[in-house]
Amino acid sequence: NNDFKIAVLPGDGIGPEVVQESVKILNVISEVFQYKFQFKYGLIGAEAIFQTGNPLPDDTLELCKKSDAVLFGAIGDPSFDNNPDAKVRPEQGLLKLRKELGLFANIRPLKTYPSLIEKSPLKQEIIEGTDIQIFRELVSGIYFGEKFTEENEAYAYDVCRYSREDIIPIVHMAFQEAQKRRKKVTLIDKANVLDTSRLWRKICREIAQEYPEVELDFMFVDNAAMQLILNPKQFDVIVTENMFGDIISDEASVIGGSIGLLPSASIGESNALFEPIHGSYPQAKGKGIANPVASILSVAMMLDHLKLEQAANKLRESVEHAIENKYVTIDLNSKQPYSTAEVGDFIADYI
Amino acid sequence: NNDFKIAVLPGDGIGPEVVQESVKILNVISEVFQYKFQFKYGLIGAEAIFQTGNPLPDDTLELCKKSDAVLFGAIGDPSFDNNPDAKVRPEQGLLKLRKELGLFANIRPLKTYPSLIEKSPLKQEIIEGTDIQIFRELVSGIYFGEKFTEENEAYAYDVCRYSREDIIPIVHMAFQEAQKRRKKVTLIDKANVLDTSRLWRKICREIAQEYPEVELDFMFVDNAAMQLILNPKQFDVIVTENMFGDIISDEASVIGGSIGLLPSASIGESNALFEPIHGSYPQAKGKGIANPVASILSVAMMLDHLKLEQAANKLRESVEHAIENKYVTIDLNSKQPYSTAEVGDFIADYI
Ligand SMILES: CC(C)[C@H](C(=O)O)[C@@H](O)C(=O)O
Ligand SMILES: CC(C)[C@H](C(=O)O)[C@@H](O)C(=O)O
Repeated sequence: NNDFKIAVLPGDGIGPEVVQESVKILNVISEVFQYKFQFKYGLIGAEAIFQTGNPLPDDTLELCKKSDAVLFGAIGDPSFDNNPDAKVRPEQGLLKLRKELGLFANIRPLKTYPSLIEKSPLKQEIIEGTDIQIFRELVSGIYFGEKFTEENEAYAYDVCRYSREDIIPIVHMAFQEAQKRRKKVTLIDKANVLDTSRLWRKICREIAQEYPEVELDFMFVDNAAMQLILNPKQFDVIVTENMFGDIISDEASVIGGSIGLLPSASIGESNALFEPIHGSYPQAKGKGIANPVASILSVAMMLDHLKLEQAANKLRESVEHAIENKYVTIDLNSKQPYSTAEVGDFIADYI
Repeated sequence: NNDFKIAVLPGDGIGPEVVQESVKILNVISEVFQYKFQFKYGLIGAEAIFQTGNPLPDDTLELCKKSDAVLFGAIGDPSFDNNPDAKVRPEQGLLKLRKELGLFANIRPLKTYPSLIEKSPLKQEIIEGTDIQIFRELVSGIYFGEKFTEENEAYAYDVCRYSREDIIPIVHMAFQEAQKRRKKVTLIDKANVLDTSRLWRKICREIAQEYPEVELDFMFVDNAAMQLILNPKQFDVIVTENMFGDIISDEASVIGGSIGLLPSASIGESNALFEPIHGSYPQAKGKGIANPVASILSVAMMLDHLKLEQAANKLRESVEHAIENKYVTIDLNSKQPYSTAEVGDFIADYI
């Protein structure tokens, strides 16, 4: 099958700009490799609220369910962040989409580029050679547990709940990935305090039996927040629950020097979504300065997922070529920056 | 009143060694400034489990309740961390002590020392001049909410609950501190996902009215984990809930270059506890290499709390003198290190 249905959800802020470059790349790839990508666009986030009142309109959800992959831009808008009483929020669209599509694993590879190491806030000797793959559970935990606010706002609570079935699939995924890499899985948790963390530990230990060549490590989340800065090279594959994954993977994302380079994949049983790690970055919207590489590398993860590895590798090679030749946006080179579209063109041409 | 009852809880690992230096310092201060400190020792943590089966024996709790301040060392032992089935754990002693004494605010000042900046994993220009005060809520939230594990371990949950009364006092404390500093409070939360975070935001907004000269900022915890590394100087006072505070304050603690220097105070209505941020560091136990400065600076916070500001300032000056003259332990100078006791002696002599 060489014919793929791609749902494109540009979303908010710089989302549309970077997604446009990704579509450009996919079009070139379809020519060069003779695949067919059929793009259908959907509304989500603040844009969807403005136009329909709903952060995830039904057609968007339907579109995504029927697609082979979802190409996602970004979500979030300052007009909602500054309004504490907004009942409908852009983020709800993304959370609902994750849940409805059952995207249980958010995968974030973290690598450093030799030519960009100087951009990192960390010292070169600390980050050089860092290569981490983070698996964050994405559809359970405190994000999706019961929530309650007493009507006079006297108290509120959020429940963090995990069942065995919520934990098992992502842990297997992490071990399988580790087998292909340096054979080490680190579970990040707070097992000295939380029952859910102790359940994660238990299940990780059980599953580890099936992967005898992979080493299983445990690290408390507070210590992990330190170790990521002190010695990121100690990590190979990280697996963790939803909230800790949100914090730890964002922290990890800055050590490489540019969050504008980092892709992610959110994988479920029968759907998958690909998005850059950076958010909607509203200050840059419409200026043509956003870095499209994170979105473009998300396309590479999409190609891998669709088993188009040859195209995926070619794409990654092209991105590296652009970076090594300083064909980059202003975040990576303030002296001689290229625009979002120019970087996209350069990568497309190379392919 | 010049007569103070100090409960001393050395605890586990390097706790006893560093606390011994702090007691040495307090004895010198009592001579120089004519105060009287009456020390009574109590068991806690792994040591207490080994000797009594209980990580917080009743006498220890009584002793602490009757004291003017608690001097705490460290807690934790590898023999428990590696045993998933241990029902009684050292950490429970500390958590119970916090709850019983009502120590609702954990305060962590974070400063950089010019002579140690090179020790930081971050680049000098990023951290130079960082000066942050973190207020972490310490006796509520997911640490103390209902916990449950189904008997067949099919699922588990932890409840994060906050009432108005849990939040109000620490927010006031943070604003009052900001008034004495650069007049900015940043609430770290996840208000785009959690009901409890929205309650925190609401209450912070209300309380901010009473401090019109202080600016109130909000930051999502995932973004905060990045911003602490990218630009720590943007923060003045941080206030946050228990779990986020655990992660964020540990992350913040490494940016200065030595966690061996960082003190903390845990304050309640009628009790207060002072402890270094570093843990029990069992690998270093009994070797005389542990850095006593974090514990000694916790004593300075204790003296502030007891309104002995003159002594507190003298003590801080003495510590700075030791550091500037490289009278430091191996973590800060591997070429010509001094022992734990030598550093304590040097600081004591200077006083
Ligand atoms: C927008 C927000 C709800 C989301 C999350 O917390 O999961 C984002 O931070 C992310 O990591 O994708
Ligand atoms: C030992 C542990 C329970 C504790 C906590 O998580 O509060 C520690 O990490 C701390 O920050 O004091």
